[in-house]
Amino acid sequence: MPASAAPGSAPPGFQTMWRELAAVGRDAGSGGYRRYAWTPADTDCRAWFREQAAARGLDYETDRNGNQWAWLGDPAAGDAVVTGSHLDSVPDGGAFDGPLGVVSAFAAVDELRARGAVPGRPLAVVNFGDEEGARFGLACVGSRLTAGRIGAEDARRLRDADGVTLARAMERAGHDPDAIGADPERLARVGAFVELHVEQGRALDLGGHPVGVASAIWPHGRWRFDFRGQANHAGTTRLEDRHDPMLTYAGTVLAAREQARLAGALATFGKVAVEPGGVNAIASLVRGWLDSRAADEQTLAAVVAGIERAAREGGTRDGVAVEVVRESFTPEVEFAPVLRDRLAALLGTDAPVPVLPTGAGHDAGILADAVPTAMLFVRNPTGVSHSPAEFAAEDDCAAGVTALADVLEGLACR
Amino acid sequence: MPASAAPGSAPPGFQTMWRELAAVGRDAGSGGYRRYAWTPADTDCRAWFREQAAARGLDYETDRNGNQWAWLGDPAAGDAVVTGSHLDSVPDGGAFDGPLGVVSAFAAVDELRARGAVPGRPLAVVNFGDEEGARFGLACVGSRLTAGRIGAEDARRLRDADGVTLARAMERAGHDPDAIGADPERLARVGAFVELHVEQGRALDLGGHPVGVASAIWPHGRWRFDFRGQANHAGTTRLEDRHDPMLTYAGTVLAAREQARLAGALATFGKVAVEPGGVNAIASLVRGWLDSRAADEQTLAAVVAGIERAAREGGTRDGVAVEVVRESFTPEVEFAPVLRDRLAALLGTDAPVPVLPTGAGHDAGILADAVPTAMLFVRNPTGVSHSPAEFAAEDDCAAGVTALADVLEGLACR
Repeated sequence: MPASAAPGSAPPGFQTMWRELAAVGRDAGSGGYRRYAWTPADTDCRAWFREQAAARGLDYETDRNGNQWAWLGDPAAGDAVVTGSHLDSVPDGGAFDGPLGVVSAFAAVDELRARGAVPGRPLAVVNFGDEEGARFGLACVGSRLTAGRIGAEDARRLRDADGVTLARAMERAGHDPDAIGADPERLARVGAFVELHVEQGRALDLGGHPVGVASAIWPHGRWRFDFRGQANHAGTTRLEDRHDPMLTYAGTVLAAREQARLAGALATFGKVAVEPGGVNAIASLVRGWLDSRAADEQTLAAVVAGIERAAREGGTRDGVAVEVVRESFTPEVEFAPVLRDRLAALLGTDAPVPVLPTGAGHDAGILADAVPTAMLFVRNPTGVSHSPAEFAAEDDCAAGVTALADVLEGLACR
Repeated sequence: MPASAAPGSAPPGFQTMWRELAAVGRDAGSGGYRRYAWTPADTDCRAWFREQAAARGLDYETDRNGNQWAWLGDPAAGDAVVTGSHLDSVPDGGAFDGPLGVVSAFAAVDELRARGAVPGRPLAVVNFGDEEGARFGLACVGSRLTAGRIGAEDARRLRDADGVTLARAMERAGHDPDAIGADPERLARVGAFVELHVEQGRALDLGGHPVGVASAIWPHGRWRFDFRGQANHAGTTRLEDRHDPMLTYAGTVLAAREQARLAGALATFGKVAVEPGGVNAIASLVRGWLDSRAADEQTLAAVVAGIERAAREGGTRDGVAVEVVRESFTPEVEFAPVLRDRLAALLGTDAPVPVLPTGAGHDAGILADAVPTAMLFVRNPTGVSHSPAEFAAEDDCAAGVTALADVLEGLACR
């Protein structure tokens, strides 16, 4: 539902929340969102979350890692049902990836109350910090820290493009970086985590379903490829005297596509940095980041090895040194089968609800090792995401809220 | 001569000037220079130039386009002999490209005085502003404006990467942007312009010559290639649903190299910008800049047409829109034959001095249409330029000063 959509079938509370969030961190030029962790736009999103908690009489807290929680009932009682997602964005991201899960979570709490459903377990809405990793290069930092999947010291040392550490960025935004770290007590109180998310492919649309349940997340990772040659004058250096890393990079981009195609996998170079970056200077360094994913870890490893081999062969040909660093890796996640089947049963009373895998990482994937975790997807008619063109119809957003309310009622109120 | 070189055969005045300039605008990380037009580093270079003029009792003036002049004798007398170069740099450039010509010019004035040579014509040292075009994307803006090769309004509207116009940048640096424009009266007073420059290839080194005379500058230009696809999630978008402009860019980079190789020309992509530029986002826009040069204009046109054809074919294959914009073009420059032969004669009394073409653009190339213009090159043992590794031996720098003094004496004092 774009910010400009006419009121439709979504609950009024949903519509109001959507309108309030629509302007936060939106770039007027691109129309996309730039809500990077611990920036003023992120702070505005966090203030909005806190207001939503207050408006509903939910108990608000920020945990040691900067994740936000809004509680209905006493967290100390344990076995809580938690739902939510994230509010940060990729560069020029869309309105739905993340916020749809948080807004739907608050709207589902409203819906439960409208139904008169009384939870017998604590219930919480959560906003995990820094899910996209757009600023510090590592995705899901908020949930990773909580789950102990990254150490506090390693996290504090992460740097953004301007060299600002995560510790310093947290400090500037008013969060104590010395407090961060694993939080097993908190996770032990969570009995189930359900994340609603806009689908990032077209499977639901192709099948004609507004809502689906996640089965698994493909293993995926990020690799940094450094191509080092020799800076020189583009107008005077003979071709045979050159060590031009741009050529090696270009060959590697094409090899990545080919390797992915042959393996039925995904491989993408979407970010590149060049030094010195002058129009009339042969580059000394081209640094490209590979994002790759596949249905299983063996296939993924083979694809990345094939790309790395092509890069090294190109480097030998071009007189360019190649270094490859794995910056992050997330193994395959299979969501808790019992919870997944329960969701499918709760939502499949009229017609079977599709159960499908995804290539995208999520906080739910990070938490899946520690707590029973599930995901709901809402139909995306174009499959476009991480773009201002990302979209879900208002009717489908409404169906998502209803489905999430059904799930919360089924898990917490019966 | 690196900043750290021990004192050698260069005149003490040369050494002092070199040391003073060595620290200005140098990046501690890369060891390269970042002296971009109208930045604080540029202002520091300009202050240094003014001090050199004052220290020698030369009459200092800044012209309407921000070029700096230091006069010995009355400019109004006309038929002046002018020498100099520029002080700005490419990103992470070397110490010699530009500054060697300005420092050698002042050192040659010192040398003339030491010889007791008295000029019969006005003599000037000049520093042309914004030669490299590193900030606003157009090379030789200072000399282009003066020669009327770019209109004042077009120049004022040039923008840097942050969107700052040249007009605003000039204003901030204390230069009136309303004053800029063609300056034919000034050029009419110049009888000859001689620019000394570090060679940017290895021709002098291969022939064993410390100094050479330029014959011509290859025609050259810059073209911006915009590849527009569709931003999308790198982890969820099927390969067959993608419109990934990075693939089209990569194919074009490789095609450029191939076209240049086949034609005996040069073609380089050394600068690229990606939107949105997230690791897990397929790019929506990849913008690459092509620098291309050839021995004649027909060859150059054929090379660029071949690259553009490859880009469009790739765009059709990838579902990516391709736009090509010529951002600048400099026709072939043949330096004034009479002046060139005079220089070769002045410097070739003991042994013939080499006369050679270059692929690099210079202010001398811009001015060659309006005034008799010549260039001297100083040996570069590695041929590397536009890089911190750019180098000329101190003995060769000294030979350059002597040659320039011989030329100035021959032209102005006899």
